[in-house]
Amino acid sequence: MTKKDVFVLQDILLSNAQTAAAIRRELESRHILAVNLLSSPGAGKTTLLEAMADRLRGKARIAVIEGDIETERDAERIRAKGVPAWQITTGGACHLEAKMIGKVLPDIPTDIDFLFIENVGNLVCPAGYDLGEGLRVVLLSTPEGDDKPKKYPKAFTTADVLLLSKSDLRPHLPFDVEKAKAEALSLNPKLRVFVISSVAGEGLEEWIDFLFQARQEILSRA
Amino acid sequence: MTKKDVFVLQDILLSNAQTAAAIRRELESRHILAVNLLSSPGAGKTTLLEAMADRLRGKARIAVIEGDIETERDAERIRAKGVPAWQITTGGACHLEAKMIGKVLPDIPTDIDFLFIENVGNLVCPAGYDLGEGLRVVLLSTPEGDDKPKKYPKAFTTADVLLLSKSDLRPHLPFDVEKAKAEALSLNPKLRVFVISSVAGEGLEEWIDFLFQARQEILSRA
Repeated sequence: MTKKDVFVLQDILLSNAQTAAAIRRELESRHILAVNLLSSPGAGKTTLLEAMADRLRGKARIAVIEGDIETERDAERIRAKGVPAWQITTGGACHLEAKMIGKVLPDIPTDIDFLFIENVGNLVCPAGYDLGEGLRVVLLSTPEGDDKPKKYPKAFTTADVLLLSKSDLRPHLPFDVEKAKAEALSLNPKLRVFVISSVAGEGLEEWIDFLFQARQEILSRA
Repeated sequence: MTKKDVFVLQDILLSNAQTAAAIRRELESRHILAVNLLSSPGAGKTTLLEAMADRLRGKARIAVIEGDIETERDAERIRAKGVPAWQITTGGACHLEAKMIGKVLPDIPTDIDFLFIENVGNLVCPAGYDLGEGLRVVLLSTPEGDDKPKKYPKAFTTADVLLLSKSDLRPHLPFDVEKAKAEALSLNPKLRVFVISSVAGEGLEEWIDFLFQARQEILSRA
Protein backbone atom coordinates (compact mmCIF):
# COMPACT_ATOMS: atom_id res chain seq x y z
CA MET A 1 0.00 0.00 0.00
CA THR A 2 1.57 3.31 -1.09
CA LYS A 3 1.34 6.55 0.84
CA LYS A 4 -1.14 7.73 -1.80
CA ASP A 5 -3.36 4.72 -1.11
CA VAL A 6 -3.28 5.47 2.59
CA PHE A 7 -4.57 8.97 1.96
CA VAL A 8 -7.21 7.77 -0.51
CA LEU A 9 -8.41 5.33 2.11
CA GLN A 10 -8.56 8.11 4.66
CA ASP A 11 -10.69 10.12 2.25
CA ILE A 12 -13.35 7.52 2.54
CA LEU A 13 -13.06 6.60 6.17
CA LEU A 14 -12.32 9.71 8.08
CA SER A 15 -14.09 12.94 8.73
CA ASN A 16 -12.47 16.23 7.75
CA ALA A 17 -11.15 16.78 11.28
CA GLN A 18 -9.58 13.34 11.40
CA THR A 19 -8.06 13.69 7.94
CA ALA A 20 -6.71 17.12 8.91
CA ALA A 21 -5.15 15.67 12.06
CA ALA A 22 -3.47 12.92 10.01
CA ILE A 23 -2.12 15.52 7.55
CA ARG A 24 -0.83 17.67 10.43
CA ARG A 25 1.05 14.71 11.91
CA GLU A 26 2.48 13.80 8.52
CA LEU A 27 3.67 17.36 7.84
CA GLU A 28 5.14 17.72 11.31
CA SER A 29 7.05 14.48 10.85
CA ARG A 30 8.50 15.98 7.66
CA HIS A 31 9.35 19.26 9.50
CA ILE A 32 7.09 21.21 7.16
CA LEU A 33 4.99 24.17 8.32
CA ALA A 34 1.74 24.33 6.35
CA VAL A 35 0.15 27.76 6.03
CA ASN A 36 -3.52 28.02 5.02
CA LEU A 37 -4.28 31.36 3.34
CA LEU A 38 -7.90 32.55 3.47
CA SER A 39 -9.52 35.65 2.00
CA SER A 40 -12.12 37.12 -0.32
CA PRO A 41 -11.43 36.76 -4.05
CA GLY A 42 -8.82 39.25 -5.15
CA ALA A 43 -7.44 40.17 -1.71
CA GLY A 44 -3.94 39.40 -2.94
CA LYS A 45 -3.16 35.83 -1.88
CA THR A 46 -1.43 34.81 -5.12
CA THR A 47 0.41 38.12 -5.45
CA LEU A 48 1.68 37.70 -1.89
CA LEU A 49 2.91 34.18 -2.71
CA GLU A 50 4.68 35.52 -5.81
CA ALA A 51 6.41 38.19 -3.69
CA MET A 52 7.33 35.61 -1.06
CA ALA A 53 8.74 33.25 -3.69
CA ASP A 54 11.18 36.00 -4.67
CA ARG A 55 12.12 36.82 -1.08
CA LEU A 56 12.46 33.22 0.11
CA ARG A 57 14.64 32.10 -2.81
CA GLY A 58 17.80 30.55 -1.36
CA LYS A 59 16.50 30.95 2.21
CA ALA A 60 13.76 28.34 2.40
CA ARG A 61 12.34 25.56 0.26
CA ILE A 62 8.65 26.04 -0.44
CA ALA A 63 5.77 24.45 -2.33
CA VAL A 64 2.28 25.74 -3.01
CA ILE A 65 -1.13 24.14 -3.28
CA GLU A 66 -3.62 26.36 -5.10
CA GLY A 67 -7.35 25.99 -4.52
CA ASP A 68 -9.75 27.36 -7.10
CA ILE A 69 -13.17 26.53 -8.42
CA GLU A 70 -11.91 26.52 -12.00
CA THR A 71 -8.71 27.23 -13.97
CA GLU A 72 -5.02 26.47 -13.42
CA ARG A 73 -4.17 30.20 -13.45
CA ASP A 74 -2.82 30.61 -9.94
CA ALA A 75 -0.59 27.51 -10.04
CA GLU A 76 0.84 28.74 -13.36
CA ARG A 77 1.72 32.10 -11.77
CA ILE A 78 3.53 30.34 -8.91
CA ARG A 79 5.36 27.91 -11.22
CA ALA A 80 6.56 30.90 -13.26
CA LYS A 81 8.44 31.89 -10.08
CA GLY A 82 10.25 28.54 -10.07
CA VAL A 83 8.21 27.19 -7.16
CA PRO A 84 6.53 23.77 -7.42
CA ALA A 85 2.75 24.22 -7.34
CA TRP A 86 -0.25 21.93 -7.45
CA GLN A 87 -3.66 23.17 -8.55
CA ILE A 88 -6.78 21.76 -6.94
CA THR A 89 -9.90 22.76 -8.88
CA THR A 90 -12.96 22.10 -6.78
CA GLY A 91 -15.37 22.21 -9.72
CA GLY A 92 -17.89 24.36 -7.86
CA ALA A 93 -17.13 23.70 -4.21
CA CYS A 94 -16.59 26.90 -2.24
CA HIS A 95 -13.67 25.78 -0.05
CA LEU A 96 -10.85 23.25 0.23
CA GLU A 97 -11.27 20.20 2.46
CA ALA A 98 -8.60 18.14 4.17
CA LYS A 99 -9.19 15.14 1.89
CA MET A 100 -8.28 17.28 -1.15
CA ILE A 101 -4.96 18.15 0.49
CA GLY A 102 -4.49 14.50 1.44
CA LYS A 103 -4.71 13.49 -2.21
CA VAL A 104 -1.98 15.95 -3.25
CA LEU A 105 0.30 15.43 -0.26
CA PRO A 106 2.11 12.30 -1.49
CA ASP A 107 3.32 14.33 -4.51
CA ILE A 108 4.72 17.20 -2.43
CA PRO A 109 8.53 17.08 -1.97
CA THR A 110 9.41 15.81 1.50
CA ASP A 111 12.34 18.20 1.98
CA ILE A 112 10.51 21.54 1.90
CA ASP A 113 10.27 23.98 4.84
CA PHE A 114 6.91 25.59 4.08
CA LEU A 115 3.79 24.38 2.30
CA PHE A 116 1.52 27.28 1.41
CA ILE A 117 -2.09 26.39 0.73
CA GLU A 118 -4.08 29.10 -1.03
CA ASN A 119 -7.73 28.43 -0.33
CA VAL A 120 -10.63 29.23 -2.67
CA GLY A 121 -11.33 32.98 -2.61
CA ASN A 122 -14.16 33.11 -0.10
CA LEU A 123 -14.13 34.84 3.28
CA VAL A 124 -16.88 32.58 4.64
CA CYS A 125 -16.80 28.84 3.95
CA PRO A 126 -13.07 27.98 4.11
CA ALA A 127 -13.02 29.10 7.76
CA GLY A 128 -14.99 25.96 8.70
CA TYR A 129 -12.43 23.47 7.34
CA ASP A 130 -9.19 22.51 9.03
CA LEU A 131 -6.73 21.44 6.32
CA GLY A 132 -4.07 20.20 8.73
CA GLU A 133 -2.26 23.54 8.61
CA GLY A 134 0.08 24.71 11.35
CA LEU A 135 -0.79 28.35 10.77
CA ARG A 136 -4.00 29.91 9.48
CA VAL A 137 -3.69 33.32 7.85
CA VAL A 138 -6.54 35.61 6.81
CA LEU A 139 -5.95 38.48 4.39
CA LEU A 140 -8.16 41.57 4.45
CA SER A 141 -7.35 43.98 1.63
CA THR A 142 -7.62 47.76 1.87
CA PRO A 143 -10.29 48.06 -0.87
CA GLU A 144 -12.63 45.65 0.96
CA GLY A 145 -13.19 48.10 3.80
CA ASP A 146 -12.38 48.23 7.50
CA ASP A 147 -15.86 47.02 8.55
CA LYS A 148 -15.36 43.40 7.46
CA PRO A 149 -14.10 41.52 10.56
CA LYS A 150 -17.41 41.61 12.45
CA LYS A 151 -19.42 40.97 9.28
CA TYR A 152 -17.40 37.82 8.49
CA PRO A 153 -16.24 36.83 11.97
CA LYS A 154 -15.30 33.16 11.62
CA ALA A 155 -12.30 33.73 9.35
CA PHE A 156 -10.95 36.15 11.96
CA THR A 157 -11.75 34.11 15.06
CA THR A 158 -10.12 30.96 13.64
CA ALA A 159 -6.99 32.60 12.17
CA ASP A 160 -3.58 32.94 13.81
CA VAL A 161 -2.48 35.85 11.64
CA LEU A 162 -4.23 38.79 9.95
CA LEU A 163 -2.53 40.39 6.97
CA LEU A 164 -3.99 43.81 6.10
CA SER A 165 -3.01 43.66 2.44
CA LYS A 166 -2.73 46.14 -0.44
CA SER A 167 -1.57 48.87 1.95
CA ASP A 168 -0.21 50.78 -1.08
CA LEU A 169 -3.82 51.66 -1.98
CA ARG A 170 -4.44 53.44 1.35
CA PRO A 171 -3.97 56.96 -0.07
CA HIS A 172 -6.93 56.34 -2.41
CA LEU A 173 -9.33 54.70 0.03
CA PRO A 174 -10.97 55.46 3.39
CA PHE A 175 -9.66 52.26 5.08
CA ASP A 176 -8.83 52.87 8.77
CA VAL A 177 -6.03 50.43 9.69
CA GLU A 178 -6.36 50.97 13.45
CA LYS A 179 -10.13 50.42 13.33
CA ALA A 180 -9.82 47.18 11.33
CA LYS A 181 -7.05 45.96 13.61
CA ALA A 182 -8.97 46.78 16.81
CA GLU A 183 -12.12 45.10 15.53
CA ALA A 184 -10.26 41.94 14.51
CA LEU A 185 -8.45 41.84 17.86
CA SER A 186 -11.76 42.26 19.71
CA LEU A 187 -12.88 39.04 18.00
CA ASN A 188 -9.58 37.25 18.52
CA PRO A 189 -7.03 38.82 20.90
CA LYS A 190 -4.37 36.27 19.88
CA LEU A 191 -4.24 37.43 16.23
CA ARG A 192 -0.85 38.62 15.01
CA VAL A 193 -1.45 41.53 12.64
CA PHE A 194 0.81 42.74 9.83
CA VAL A 195 0.15 45.58 7.40
CA ILE A 196 1.57 44.54 4.04
CA SER A 197 1.86 45.49 0.40
CA SER A 198 3.09 42.78 -1.93
CA VAL A 199 3.76 45.31 -4.71
CA ALA A 200 5.41 48.05 -2.61
CA GLY A 201 7.06 45.66 -0.14
CA GLU A 202 5.70 47.19 3.08
CA GLY A 203 5.67 44.73 5.98
CA LEU A 204 6.96 41.72 4.03
CA GLU A 205 10.24 41.45 5.93
CA GLU A 206 8.46 41.42 9.32
CA TRP A 207 5.91 38.91 8.06
CA ILE A 208 8.60 36.56 6.69
CA ASP A 209 10.68 36.87 9.89
CA PHE A 210 7.55 35.91 11.83
CA LEU A 211 6.98 32.90 9.55
CA PHE A 212 10.44 31.50 10.29
CA GLN A 213 9.94 31.98 14.05
CA ALA A 214 6.48 30.42 13.87
CA ARG A 215 7.85 27.40 12.01
CA GLN A 216 10.46 26.85 14.69
CA GLU A 217 7.99 27.25 17.55
CA ILE A 218 5.21 25.16 16.04
CA LEU A 219 7.48 22.31 14.98
CA SER A 220 9.32 22.26 18.31
CA ARG A 221 5.94 21.96 20.09
CA ALA A 222 4.84 19.09 17.84
CA MET B 1 -54.14 32.68 7.76
CA THR B 2 -52.06 35.82 7.26
CA LYS B 3 -49.67 36.40 4.39
CA LYS B 4 -46.82 35.83 6.86
CA ASP B 5 -48.22 32.45 7.80
CA VAL B 6 -48.40 31.49 4.16
CA PHE B 7 -44.72 32.19 3.74
CA VAL B 8 -43.79 30.37 6.96
CA LEU B 9 -45.68 27.36 5.70
CA GLN B 10 -43.86 27.56 2.39
CA ASP B 11 -40.56 27.53 4.27
CA ILE B 12 -41.33 24.09 5.48
CA LEU B 13 -42.99 22.64 2.45
CA LEU B 14 -41.23 23.95 -0.56
CA SER B 15 -37.77 23.70 -1.97
CA ASN B 16 -35.77 26.84 -2.59
CA ALA B 17 -36.78 26.88 -6.27
CA GLN B 18 -40.46 26.61 -5.45
CA THR B 19 -40.24 29.29 -2.75
CA ALA B 20 -38.38 31.54 -5.19
CA ALA B 21 -41.05 31.01 -7.83
CA ALA B 22 -43.76 31.96 -5.32
CA ILE B 23 -41.84 35.10 -4.34
CA ARG B 24 -41.38 36.02 -8.01
CA ARG B 25 -45.12 35.73 -8.67
CA GLU B 26 -45.93 37.75 -5.55
CA LEU B 27 -43.50 40.54 -6.49
CA GLU B 28 -44.72 40.62 -10.08
CA SER B 29 -48.31 40.93 -8.88
CA ARG B 30 -47.18 43.96 -6.86
CA HIS B 31 -45.32 45.39 -9.92
CA ILE B 32 -42.03 45.28 -8.05
CA LEU B 33 -38.74 44.43 -9.75
CA ALA B 34 -36.47 42.57 -7.34
CA VAL B 35 -32.73 42.88 -7.98
CA ASN B 36 -30.34 40.36 -6.39
CA LEU B 37 -26.84 41.83 -5.95
CA LEU B 38 -23.96 39.33 -5.74
CA SER B 39 -20.27 39.92 -5.21
CA SER B 40 -17.18 39.29 -3.12
CA PRO B 41 -17.04 41.07 0.24
CA GLY B 42 -16.17 44.73 -0.25
CA ALA B 43 -16.87 44.97 -3.98
CA GLY B 44 -19.11 47.97 -3.34
CA LYS B 45 -22.67 46.65 -3.14
CA THR B 46 -23.75 48.83 -0.19
CA THR B 47 -21.95 51.91 -1.52
CA LEU B 48 -23.73 51.43 -4.85
CA LEU B 49 -27.09 51.20 -3.06
CA GLU B 50 -26.29 54.39 -1.14
CA ALA B 51 -25.46 56.18 -4.42
CA MET B 52 -28.64 54.85 -6.03
CA ALA B 53 -30.75 55.94 -3.06
CA ASP B 54 -29.60 59.50 -3.73
CA ARG B 55 -30.19 59.29 -7.47
CA LEU B 56 -33.57 57.55 -7.29
CA ARG B 57 -35.02 59.94 -4.69
CA GLY B 58 -38.30 61.32 -6.09
CA LYS B 59 -38.03 59.10 -9.19
CA ALA B 60 -38.75 55.64 -7.81
CA ARG B 61 -39.82 54.05 -4.53
CA ILE B 62 -37.32 51.50 -3.30
CA ALA B 63 -36.67 49.16 -0.40
CA VAL B 64 -33.62 47.11 0.48
CA ILE B 65 -33.04 43.72 2.06
CA GLU B 66 -29.51 43.34 3.40
CA GLY B 67 -27.95 39.90 3.80
CA ASP B 68 -25.01 39.50 6.14
CA ILE B 69 -23.57 36.82 8.36
CA GLU B 70 -23.48 39.17 11.33
CA THR B 71 -24.20 42.85 12.17
CA GLU B 72 -26.91 45.33 11.16
CA ARG B 73 -24.30 47.66 9.63
CA ASP B 74 -25.42 47.65 6.02
CA ALA B 75 -29.12 48.16 6.79
CA GLU B 76 -28.18 51.11 9.01
CA ARG B 77 -26.23 52.69 6.16
CA ILE B 78 -29.24 52.34 3.84
CA ARG B 79 -31.73 53.66 6.44
CA ALA B 80 -29.48 56.70 6.92
CA LYS B 81 -30.35 57.47 3.28
CA GLY B 82 -34.07 57.50 4.14
CA VAL B 83 -34.69 54.15 2.44
CA PRO B 84 -36.54 51.38 4.29
CA ALA B 85 -34.17 48.46 4.87
CA TRP B 86 -34.43 45.03 6.46
CA GLN B 87 -31.36 43.19 7.70
CA ILE B 88 -31.20 39.42 7.45
CA THR B 89 -28.30 38.02 9.47
CA THR B 90 -27.65 34.45 8.48
CA GLY B 91 -25.64 33.61 11.61
CA GLY B 92 -22.95 31.79 9.67
CA ALA B 93 -24.66 30.77 6.45
CA CYS B 94 -22.75 31.88 3.37
CA HIS B 95 -25.69 32.96 1.18
CA LEU B 96 -29.32 34.06 1.27
CA GLU B 97 -32.06 31.55 0.48
CA ALA B 98 -35.54 32.20 -0.86
CA LYS B 99 -37.20 31.25 2.43
CA MET B 100 -35.28 34.06 4.19
CA ILE B 101 -36.70 36.55 1.67
CA GLY B 102 -40.13 34.99 2.08
CA LYS B 103 -40.07 35.72 5.80
CA VAL B 104 -39.27 39.43 5.25
CA LEU B 105 -41.54 39.95 2.24
CA PRO B 106 -44.81 40.53 4.14
CA ASP B 107 -43.17 43.52 5.86
CA ILE B 108 -42.02 45.16 2.60
CA PRO B 109 -44.25 48.05 1.44
CA THR B 110 -46.49 46.93 -1.43
CA ASP B 111 -46.19 50.20 -3.37
CA ILE B 112 -42.48 50.20 -4.15
CA ASP B 113 -40.98 49.96 -7.65
CA PHE B 114 -37.71 48.20 -6.84
CA LEU B 115 -36.65 45.78 -4.12
CA PHE B 116 -32.87 45.52 -3.92
CA ILE B 117 -31.53 42.42 -2.21
CA GLU B 118 -27.89 42.64 -1.21
CA ASN B 119 -26.62 39.10 -0.81
CA VAL B 120 -23.93 37.94 1.62
CA GLY B 121 -20.50 38.99 0.32
CA ASN B 122 -19.42 35.80 -1.40
CA LEU B 123 -18.73 35.30 -5.09
CA VAL B 124 -19.39 31.55 -4.91
CA CYS B 125 -22.35 30.24 -2.91
CA PRO B 126 -25.08 32.87 -3.52
CA ALA B 127 -24.96 32.05 -7.25
CA GLY B 128 -26.67 28.72 -6.52
CA TYR B 129 -29.80 30.21 -4.91
CA ASP B 130 -32.68 31.82 -6.77
CA LEU B 131 -34.29 34.38 -4.45
CA GLY B 132 -37.23 35.12 -6.72
CA GLU B 133 -35.44 38.11 -8.23
CA GLY B 134 -36.30 39.53 -11.65
CA LEU B 135 -32.74 40.60 -12.27
CA ARG B 136 -29.49 39.15 -11.01
CA VAL B 137 -26.52 41.50 -10.89
CA VAL B 138 -22.90 40.55 -10.18
CA LEU B 139 -20.35 43.19 -9.19
CA LEU B 140 -16.66 42.71 -9.93
CA SER B 141 -14.52 45.46 -8.46
CA THR B 142 -11.33 46.81 -10.02
CA PRO B 143 -9.07 45.75 -7.09
CA GLU B 144 -10.20 42.12 -7.35
CA GLY B 145 -8.50 41.68 -10.71
CA ASP B 146 -9.60 41.00 -14.28
CA ASP B 147 -8.96 37.26 -14.03
CA LYS B 148 -11.95 36.48 -11.82
CA PRO B 149 -14.83 35.54 -14.18
CA LYS B 150 -13.38 32.16 -15.23
CA LYS B 151 -12.18 31.43 -11.69
CA TYR B 152 -15.66 31.99 -10.22
CA PRO B 153 -17.82 31.22 -13.24
CA LYS B 154 -21.25 30.52 -11.76
CA ALA B 155 -21.90 34.07 -10.56
CA PHE B 156 -21.19 35.26 -14.11
CA THR B 157 -23.09 32.55 -15.99
CA THR B 158 -26.24 33.04 -13.88
CA ALA B 159 -26.26 36.87 -13.80
CA ASP B 160 -28.15 39.19 -16.15
CA VAL B 161 -25.89 42.18 -15.49
CA LEU B 162 -22.20 42.65 -14.69
CA LEU B 163 -21.15 45.86 -12.96
CA LEU B 164 -17.40 46.47 -13.14
CA SER B 165 -17.27 48.58 -9.98
CA LYS B 166 -14.77 50.97 -8.37
CA SER B 167 -13.67 52.22 -11.78
CA ASP B 168 -12.20 55.30 -10.03
CA LEU B 169 -9.35 53.05 -8.80
CA ARG B 170 -8.27 52.09 -12.33
CA PRO B 171 -5.32 54.53 -12.46
CA HIS B 172 -3.76 52.71 -9.49
CA LEU B 173 -4.36 49.11 -10.58
CA PRO B 174 -3.55 46.85 -13.55
CA PHE B 175 -7.23 45.91 -14.16
CA ASP B 176 -7.97 45.47 -17.90
CA VAL B 177 -11.65 46.36 -18.42
CA GLU B 178 -11.84 44.92 -21.93
CA LYS B 179 -10.25 41.65 -20.83
CA ALA B 180 -12.64 41.24 -17.88
CA LYS B 181 -15.60 42.12 -20.07
CA ALA B 182 -14.59 39.73 -22.86
CA GLU B 183 -14.01 36.87 -20.42
CA ALA B 184 -17.37 37.40 -18.70
CA LEU B 185 -19.13 37.59 -22.08
CA SER B 186 -17.41 34.38 -23.20
CA LEU B 187 -19.09 32.69 -20.23
CA ASN B 188 -22.43 34.42 -20.73
CA PRO B 189 -23.00 36.31 -24.00
CA LYS B 190 -26.29 37.76 -22.70
CA LEU B 191 -24.64 39.72 -19.86
CA ARG B 192 -25.23 43.47 -19.90
CA VAL B 193 -22.01 45.13 -18.73
CA PHE B 194 -21.64 48.56 -17.13
CA VAL B 195 -18.44 50.16 -15.84
CA ILE B 196 -19.34 52.13 -12.73
CA SER B 197 -17.94 54.13 -9.85
CA SER B 198 -20.32 54.82 -7.00
CA VAL B 199 -18.02 57.50 -5.57
CA ALA B 200 -17.09 59.27 -8.85
CA GLY B 201 -20.44 58.69 -10.54
CA GLU B 202 -19.16 57.01 -13.73
CA GLY B 203 -21.77 54.84 -15.41
CA LEU B 204 -24.51 55.30 -12.80
CA GLU B 205 -26.89 57.16 -15.11
CA GLU B 206 -26.67 54.44 -17.79
CA TRP B 207 -27.11 51.72 -15.18
CA ILE B 208 -30.17 53.40 -13.65
CA ASP B 209 -31.71 54.05 -17.09
CA PHE B 210 -31.23 50.35 -17.83
CA LEU B 211 -32.92 49.42 -14.53
CA PHE B 212 -36.08 51.37 -15.41
CA GLN B 213 -36.19 49.76 -18.88
CA ALA B 214 -35.59 46.31 -17.40
CA ARG B 215 -38.41 46.81 -14.88
CA GLN B 216 -40.83 47.71 -17.67
CA GLU B 217 -39.76 44.78 -19.87
CA ILE B 218 -39.68 42.15 -17.13
CA LEU B 219 -43.01 43.16 -15.59
CA SER B 220 -44.72 43.41 -19.00
CA ARG B 221 -43.56 39.86 -19.78
CA ALA B 222 -44.84 38.54 -16.43
